[in-house]
Amino acid sequence: MSNKQKHLAALPLGGVGIIGTNMMVYDCDGDLIVVDAGISFPGENEPGTDVVMPDTRFLREHAKSIKGVFITHAHEDHIGGVGYMWDDFAGAPVYASPLSQMVINGKLQELGIQPKKGQLKTITTREQYQAGHFSVEYVPVSHSVPEAFALAIRTKYGTIVHTGDYKFDDAAPFGQVTDEVRLAEIGKEGVLAVFGDSTNVLNPNSTGSEAPVIEHLTKLLTEAKGRVFFAAFASHFGRTFEVAKVAAKQGRKVCFLGRTINKFIAHSKALGYWPKELNNWVIDAEEAAGLPAEKVFVFASGTQGEPASSLTRLSQGADVRGLKIRQGDTVIMSSKMIPGNEKGILAVINGFSLLNANIISEITDKKTHVSGHPGAPDVKRMYKLLNPTFVIPVHGEPSMFKGHADLARAEGYTPVMLKNGHKLVLAEPVQQPKDFIAEEGKDAKEAKQPKPFRPYITKHSYPYGFNYVDGLNILENDPLILKERRKLSYDGVVVAALAIRTTTGEWLGEISMTTRGLMDEVIQADILKEGVAKTTQALEAVFQNGRIDDRQRANEVIQQTLRRHFKHQRGKQPTCLVTFVDV
Amino acid sequence: MSNKQKHLAALPLGGVGIIGTNMMVYDCDGDLIVVDAGISFPGENEPGTDVVMPDTRFLREHAKSIKGVFITHAHEDHIGGVGYMWDDFAGAPVYASPLSQMVINGKLQELGIQPKKGQLKTITTREQYQAGHFSVEYVPVSHSVPEAFALAIRTKYGTIVHTGDYKFDDAAPFGQVTDEVRLAEIGKEGVLAVFGDSTNVLNPNSTGSEAPVIEHLTKLLTEAKGRVFFAAFASHFGRTFEVAKVAAKQGRKVCFLGRTINKFIAHSKALGYWPKELNNWVIDAEEAAGLPAEKVFVFASGTQGEPASSLTRLSQGADVRGLKIRQGDTVIMSSKMIPGNEKGILAVINGFSLLNANIISEITDKKTHVSGHPGAPDVKRMYKLLNPTFVIPVHGEPSMFKGHADLARAEGYTPVMLKNGHKLVLAEPVQQPKDFIAEEGKDAKEAKQPKPFRPYITKHSYPYGFNYVDGLNILENDPLILKERRKLSYDGVVVAALAIRTTTGEWLGEISMTTRGLMDEVIQADILKEGVAKTTQALEAVFQNGRIDDRQRANEVIQQTLRRHFKHQRGKQPTCLVTFVDV
Repeated sequence: MSNKQKHLAALPLGGVGIIGTNMMVYDCDGDLIVVDAGISFPGENEPGTDVVMPDTRFLREHAKSIKGVFITHAHEDHIGGVGYMWDDFAGAPVYASPLSQMVINGKLQELGIQPKKGQLKTITTREQYQAGHFSVEYVPVSHSVPEAFALAIRTKYGTIVHTGDYKFDDAAPFGQVTDEVRLAEIGKEGVLAVFGDSTNVLNPNSTGSEAPVIEHLTKLLTEAKGRVFFAAFASHFGRTFEVAKVAAKQGRKVCFLGRTINKFIAHSKALGYWPKELNNWVIDAEEAAGLPAEKVFVFASGTQGEPASSLTRLSQGADVRGLKIRQGDTVIMSSKMIPGNEKGILAVINGFSLLNANIISEITDKKTHVSGHPGAPDVKRMYKLLNPTFVIPVHGEPSMFKGHADLARAEGYTPVMLKNGHKLVLAEPVQQPKDFIAEEGKDAKEAKQPKPFRPYITKHSYPYGFNYVDGLNILENDPLILKERRKLSYDGVVVAALAIRTTTGEWLGEISMTTRGLMDEVIQADILKEGVAKTTQALEAVFQNGRIDDRQRANEVIQQTLRRHFKHQRGKQPTCLVTFVDV
Repeated sequence: MSNKQKHLAALPLGGVGIIGTNMMVYDCDGDLIVVDAGISFPGENEPGTDVVMPDTRFLREHAKSIKGVFITHAHEDHIGGVGYMWDDFAGAPVYASPLSQMVINGKLQELGIQPKKGQLKTITTREQYQAGHFSVEYVPVSHSVPEAFALAIRTKYGTIVHTGDYKFDDAAPFGQVTDEVRLAEIGKEGVLAVFGDSTNVLNPNSTGSEAPVIEHLTKLLTEAKGRVFFAAFASHFGRTFEVAKVAAKQGRKVCFLGRTINKFIAHSKALGYWPKELNNWVIDAEEAAGLPAEKVFVFASGTQGEPASSLTRLSQGADVRGLKIRQGDTVIMSSKMIPGNEKGILAVINGFSLLNANIISEITDKKTHVSGHPGAPDVKRMYKLLNPTFVIPVHGEPSMFKGHADLARAEGYTPVMLKNGHKLVLAEPVQQPKDFIAEEGKDAKEAKQPKPFRPYITKHSYPYGFNYVDGLNILENDPLILKERRKLSYDGVVVAALAIRTTTGEWLGEISMTTRGLMDEVIQADILKEGVAKTTQALEAVFQNGRIDDRQRANEVIQQTLRRHFKHQRGKQPTCLVTFVDV
């Protein structure tokens, strides 16, 4: 992206084609703003890693042009990378709501990062934040975390609305509602393009309100005879507090298990989200363990089968700070399965079944949860308010993007698809209203309208990909290590070590060989022995004078011999590590 | 299981608590029969393995008592292990339907196994097959593969009905229907226990017929403008043939991609399932590639995102024998996501979206598939026919078992839960009708009924677990290798090689060190160098005379030093392989 180029463009660094790692760069005449800095969690192809995030080389290469970072809301797929990428923002102001700011501060503290004074800016609505050639306004939307916002991004080329995650909740029992008045006003001003949430667009029905969920959970609580264990996304603490209030009214003391929910409780107290009705009802796990069953409500973290979470450990029959699932307990999972987590979640549900708890989840009861993302009718409702020229699907997988584009087209908007690592140019200064050009197939005189600018994708590809938090390090744009790990996990490893006299190249002694993850070396001792013999023979044939004067060649010979040997003996081609000991 | 013990008992070797690897052993006074020999496919915790199957040590230890193996139907989770376990059956007759027998013969051929003459027995219905103290009858049921059967297993203690996989299809467009007349007759004879399919019991609705699926697929085909690619489970060829017939009627030539579907086509021709209407319509892929779009119907294998399948490769834009997805093609996935496969299947769907094909799957269209397993009302219908005393949930996960047990109890049957590796004793000779025993809390005179026998689980645990096909070998009951692989994939491996003079123990030269899957050795050369230095130092401190006379101690010192070093430097604790080269 040449900083000197005059245009309005968007470059996705994440969140396009996948759920998670949301990060969009907007470019107006060389000034850049960044919207969101999200992460996702590694899958089975990314073994050993802790966190996945966008490759930020583009940001580092254009550090001086970054005029602001705008966080839409406090979900990890939007905010989770702020700490890891802090240096990449190169001191640019980072805008966030009070809650998001608290979450960011927590992340910076954990990483030992001290933000520049004044770098973290608290937003309010109806305010225009200037960032280079951009002016950004936060518009409240309803979502499954408090303080979620769409962004109205004004430029001289026109206005972009970046919806962030949103839905409409016409009967919201708590939290903010989508500000349709303001969105309609922005729509009237004219919207060039919407970058819109695609997550739930394949659902033909409106997502619906949180109200019936709370109602249904209230019913489940009323019916529950024994202790109640309740699991929900920690960030959706509005729901948890509502349900906890119901429990308290029924005379149940309330216990919150989990680091994240307790962080959010601290934030909510500081920000006024904490319901005072709960003040005298909160107890710790040890106290809950001693109370009669009908007096206990426990929030347990871990809706996605996370191995270390309270809910998972409880489902395995573990004692979690004195609490242990008993027959007659009711467990309510008020959440959805995130694709890829199904097996782990099913294991949790099965665990509770084995313990004879009454487990209620979306498998048998869809009313325990509602999405925070718009279904097709909700997307239409949003676009009716904004009346955009272009609809650009973001936040989703290709099948969702296709559905989103089909919907936009059917409603009379022009869908435009993003491409990872490529810039989408939305407007250029050469294309002025005065440029009246004949439409195709029509006489020049007939043309009454300026030919609309057709957004295009640049041919040039910018750095794009994923970085991984891997223990204490970041694996940058380097999937080689992950490839090595996958290979190790499929076929194991064999090590061949040779001693060489440094001065002469003379090969001394025998080959020392060992394996891991390949076979049982005691039972298959013969196979290993035969591997040593074959390798020795192969080396002796090549290095007939007993001097290994070409280690690369020796390495190749050993690799080839052992690969063939284990393929033949075990149907496996292990990673073969050859090492020479200089004597 | 003492062979001399007098009782009727069941020992599950697989399929209890998990979907897949179905295998049940029934024991009547020491005679054993085996029902099904299924496999499942490995998950992310079983890297590098190809197939999962039950541990068969129990069968080997009781080889002489096995009187027969009874296969219910030709799905891999019931029949897939017959080849691998052939020797474990110890020559006992293996009963199967004609189709199942063809599938078994294919497996035996692939493994180079020659069955004993007459060992494979073809079943017919209404026949009683004697197997030791058992008498087994095959009763037709409706399922998503032809020739599926429930088993009525008669013993002197009473009759067990092993349902296998079943459903009711009241408007079956093809295939066999569940023989309710015969089931009702068996019910009238008296059924001691049902071992019943639990897969779909959490569905409160009846599963429904195949008819509306065929109707809906016909509609989709009629609407399709371009080429049609159709994917379904290969074993459910009845559906595929019906849809292909519709395609042929519309003037589309029919091409079948995939080894398994072509095997089933061969079987279906031999057994009379092949519809003659298709005779002149089948073409190969090369021919299909040359035809106009509206003349092409392609069956593509791979509904579960299998990497090597035709459908997966097509979704990636690959050229499969001349066929390549184009804009305007319609792809219909007529199947369900098997839990654990979601990510792969979504990748396939996304791939087709990216290629601008019209992809239709259960995500947006539930009517493209119907289950082959009974919903709750269907289970009730089955038990109404059989009127069993005991209901024993099989074929499912614990949450399904719990739902199944709740249903049974509500309907007035007594549910009994199995436990892996433990025998469930259903009847014993000591408990005769003459044994009138006072019911609890009642006077002995009041007792009019014999006290019913309460099934119980034996304390003794028999060998239970999984074996893995791993390349050319079977990993038997040995998860250690899988544990090693998982560890390798999380943290990588570091190798430390030392040369030792055999005669004196003198440590010669330097430590040679290399890593894989841990870090980039070029970028992180310093970390490796420091590792060598620290290890050398640690060894020198312990072996001050320069003689490594205790290799185990040396190994421990190196392991500890390197684990600490990489933990500190990379936040990782790699597998550490130490090898000594004798010089």
